[in-house]
Amino acid sequence: MSPLEFQPTPESIPPPNVQYRLQLAPSTAVNYTPLNPISFILRAALIYPNHVALSHRNVATPVEYTYAVWAQRVQNLAYGLIKAGIEPGDRVAVIAPNYAHNGVLAARAVLVCINTRLVKSDIEYILSHSGAKLVLVDHEYAGLVKDCPVPVIVSRDTGRAGDPYETFLSEGRRFSRERGWAGLQLEEEETANATLNYTSGTTGRPKGVMATLRGSYLAAISNAYESKLNINSVYLWVLPMFHASGWTYPWALTFAMAKQVTIRTVDYKAIWGHFLYSGVTHYCGAPTVQISIVNSPEAKRLKTPITAVIAGAAPTAALLEALENLNFQVNHVYGLTETYGPFTRNYDRPEYKSLGLEERARILSRQGHAFAQADEVRVVQIDEEGKRKPGLIDCDFMQPGEIVTRGNIVMKEYYRDPKATEEAFRGGYFATGDVAVKFPDGSISIRDRSKDLIISGGENASSLAIEQELSLHPDVLEVSVVARKHEKWGERAMAFVILHQEAVQKWKGREDEFQKDLINFVKGKLPGFAQPAWVECVSELPKTSTGKIQKTVLRQRAAKL
Amino acid sequence: MSPLEFQPTPESIPPPNVQYRLQLAPSTAVNYTPLNPISFILRAALIYPNHVALSHRNVATPVEYTYAVWAQRVQNLAYGLIKAGIEPGDRVAVIAPNYAHNGVLAARAVLVCINTRLVKSDIEYILSHSGAKLVLVDHEYAGLVKDCPVPVIVSRDTGRAGDPYETFLSEGRRFSRERGWAGLQLEEEETANATLNYTSGTTGRPKGVMATLRGSYLAAISNAYESKLNINSVYLWVLPMFHASGWTYPWALTFAMAKQVTIRTVDYKAIWGHFLYSGVTHYCGAPTVQISIVNSPEAKRLKTPITAVIAGAAPTAALLEALENLNFQVNHVYGLTETYGPFTRNYDRPEYKSLGLEERARILSRQGHAFAQADEVRVVQIDEEGKRKPGLIDCDFMQPGEIVTRGNIVMKEYYRDPKATEEAFRGGYFATGDVAVKFPDGSISIRDRSKDLIISGGENASSLAIEQELSLHPDVLEVSVVARKHEKWGERAMAFVILHQEAVQKWKGREDEFQKDLINFVKGKLPGFAQPAWVECVSELPKTSTGKIQKTVLRQRAAKL
Repeated sequence: MSPLEFQPTPESIPPPNVQYRLQLAPSTAVNYTPLNPISFILRAALIYPNHVALSHRNVATPVEYTYAVWAQRVQNLAYGLIKAGIEPGDRVAVIAPNYAHNGVLAARAVLVCINTRLVKSDIEYILSHSGAKLVLVDHEYAGLVKDCPVPVIVSRDTGRAGDPYETFLSEGRRFSRERGWAGLQLEEEETANATLNYTSGTTGRPKGVMATLRGSYLAAISNAYESKLNINSVYLWVLPMFHASGWTYPWALTFAMAKQVTIRTVDYKAIWGHFLYSGVTHYCGAPTVQISIVNSPEAKRLKTPITAVIAGAAPTAALLEALENLNFQVNHVYGLTETYGPFTRNYDRPEYKSLGLEERARILSRQGHAFAQADEVRVVQIDEEGKRKPGLIDCDFMQPGEIVTRGNIVMKEYYRDPKATEEAFRGGYFATGDVAVKFPDGSISIRDRSKDLIISGGENASSLAIEQELSLHPDVLEVSVVARKHEKWGERAMAFVILHQEAVQKWKGREDEFQKDLINFVKGKLPGFAQPAWVECVSELPKTSTGKIQKTVLRQRAAKL
Repeated sequence: MSPLEFQPTPESIPPPNVQYRLQLAPSTAVNYTPLNPISFILRAALIYPNHVALSHRNVATPVEYTYAVWAQRVQNLAYGLIKAGIEPGDRVAVIAPNYAHNGVLAARAVLVCINTRLVKSDIEYILSHSGAKLVLVDHEYAGLVKDCPVPVIVSRDTGRAGDPYETFLSEGRRFSRERGWAGLQLEEEETANATLNYTSGTTGRPKGVMATLRGSYLAAISNAYESKLNINSVYLWVLPMFHASGWTYPWALTFAMAKQVTIRTVDYKAIWGHFLYSGVTHYCGAPTVQISIVNSPEAKRLKTPITAVIAGAAPTAALLEALENLNFQVNHVYGLTETYGPFTRNYDRPEYKSLGLEERARILSRQGHAFAQADEVRVVQIDEEGKRKPGLIDCDFMQPGEIVTRGNIVMKEYYRDPKATEEAFRGGYFATGDVAVKFPDGSISIRDRSKDLIISGGENASSLAIEQELSLHPDVLEVSVVARKHEKWGERAMAFVILHQEAVQKWKGREDEFQKDLINFVKGKLPGFAQPAWVECVSELPKTSTGKIQKTVLRQRAAKL
């Protein structure tokens, strides 16, 4: 790639003798600094001001920021937000390919990451439920917030004067009157809110997962440590930053003082360009993304290995082989939005080296053990309806049960949903909703999900949300949706439908057309990844004695198809 | 080395299905685990039970413990201490070449690390001042605690049945009645006391530096991260564990799940044996130790590089060259007991590679920047007597001032010395007592010490303590002690003495004999490293207008000799 001829705006240039010191609350003890991931970028800007921190080149108007410039922009954003009336604890939403994990925190506001793949009604729900006071939106998604009742700042993703986002930053700089970092206070309480990520849960509406500064700080350091990120690392953003705050990597990377390469979309040609020519050392992604990477026409063996952090599902033997042949080193981790992204890791053992591919893949598919700074991972007994038994009884080895965990790498709460929080925290542990077995070596392996989620292309779709939309179709009497394996997307939704009696005759022998009609019906209401890939009309659904649909039975049936 | 034929005592073997779960206080929130470095060894024992954790081979009765066995021994020690009446917060002293950083913490007691090189009266002072309730002592040092009023457990360092320490552990196991880890509570308050390390300060008596669990936890992770410790690391204990809790490496290594190799004394033949044949990857040591390492007859170029973490003083160009020629990678850090050991690091830059040796050594001699998780390092203005100016004013670049810092990697307090704590914490920062300049790149470089310490062979000697002892000599009227460069030890004490008028004639022209007489006089009262290597009789001492001895002038004079 040619050297980048790009000059950041004058307001992005830090003053001479910039001081990287936030204001401390006067009561702060000498031997105490509240844990806060904003501290990482300040240290990086001090130690390596001229190191490239952010590189964003696959666009018409490429930009590249050093740590010194980036830190100044973060400060400008913070002041811009304060000027716009944002107060500590206020929520600021971002709808963009890439995010503002530092600037929002520097203003002591709460970052609401919104999935750009959601439909307008979901975004409206999130903006309303989070009570966002301001929205930062990329121009591509501006249509989604057209009627938004709070101020909207549009970024044209240019980094150049004239871009409304740049104007916002420049105004922030002027508003600061060069008070600099000293004019911004370090949040006093380390358990204060940091980010609010909406996730598909067992109920239809997305749930707001509130994360704290302390949790974000500790999880970021754990990810930096477990992935061996350091000053020489170059991280490629394949995983979207709106997924569980990008698994805290936005801060893991500033902690490591590493370089980040951003892209606007998951474009495999661009990804391979970076793999081969940008010195990439690390990236994260779900197996479905990894499959597309290894199958890309641009794929060729890497000269120096790249660490591929995989989560969301286990890599298959075929995928593992393909990755290894291309010189990727696989790091299989597991987690949820509620656990700041990864909190377990499949730890390598010397004896694995001598195993055959199939056997290694089988072992690598395990979710492993709690990783650095994560507390214990337990598998506890569940009843036949998948509910945890009271008192949390540990399962025997190889007996399926629910994965529970606790500790600093567990969310603060489901925002404005004390009932869901209480249920998730029942018994003193956070219940993941995933069913696993524990091996005698203490590692765990997921067997099923008790939460009715469909993980498709790295996105979580709530089966209940899908059911709610499908059930509004005039011909649908009852519907149940489960995950079914999909070659490309990992999983897609399969719907089992009981038709209204009067509609049975109408669609008889024309299930394909009914499926089209149904999918057409939910278009615009459900994101693409949540639309059912299969529909089967049935005369009855398997139920428990208490009338609950036995999704396990449906899942087994779907698996056999 | 031949494979080790060693069987740990039966009580060191964990039960089948051991559970690595400490009891939590019932009030502990689901999303909170109090930070405590004891959690590291439990995770290591779960994930890598059969990985060698501790290797102690340069003795008549060598031992080697896996993480599973070691963790069980830690548990046994905790129960042994509880059986012996140790309650949470009680101090437990250890006088041994190697330590008990996990077992004491597992009993929620406070570990008092005592320097084995101290004289009996200092040890008695520390035992009394710390209020230690129990002493664990290595047989070699048992004489130092002969008249100790509290229970003393002697270790013969055998790891075999019959050793009183082993009896203590085995009784602990029996006392536990197999309640295991669940019978031990995780300390609820992360700011609770963890270790108490005595250090020579500006006053004559050693000061007790109290460290917290939170600080120890965070500092250990920082050291693991900055030194790139991981499961494949093999750490050789050259640095004594009683120096600032071994710079928190006892926990950095369990966090990394690494292997530790211990030795009883700094024996360069043994050290080179381990470098060449034990797969050592890391060690820490002061320059004086490093000089002996490179000058050892066993020294030869290493096949794979070893990371040498250097602190206490800056490596010279000659030392740097010698280390690099032998394939050591130098990591220069800086810190004090009050900062849990290292808290700054000399960060490498790509452009340093092209510099000549002298220039690189000059740059490498800088103490650098605050390292991971350490808060800001400032250089603040001092008056001509070396006292910080009120309000803490940052120095201009290259203007000498006192290094101050703050945050999680700063001690809790000087134990039972609120006045000294208040003075050290004045202005909201911890004052290191070291004088440095700050470069425009934000890195610092030590120029002088305002605290009157002599750093000799990696040991800190208080000049005031030395002065107090010397002044008791009947012929001494007034004495001032400063550090002077020493080829082998880095620094040694130089004493400037004004003799009593009646003694002047007695020693005239026989200064050498007076020096011998003086050193003889303090033998047994001062440890070897604190005894003056030079004595000069003078007729007056340089003083400020307020009558304070100008040590800076004496230091300059000593430097010119």
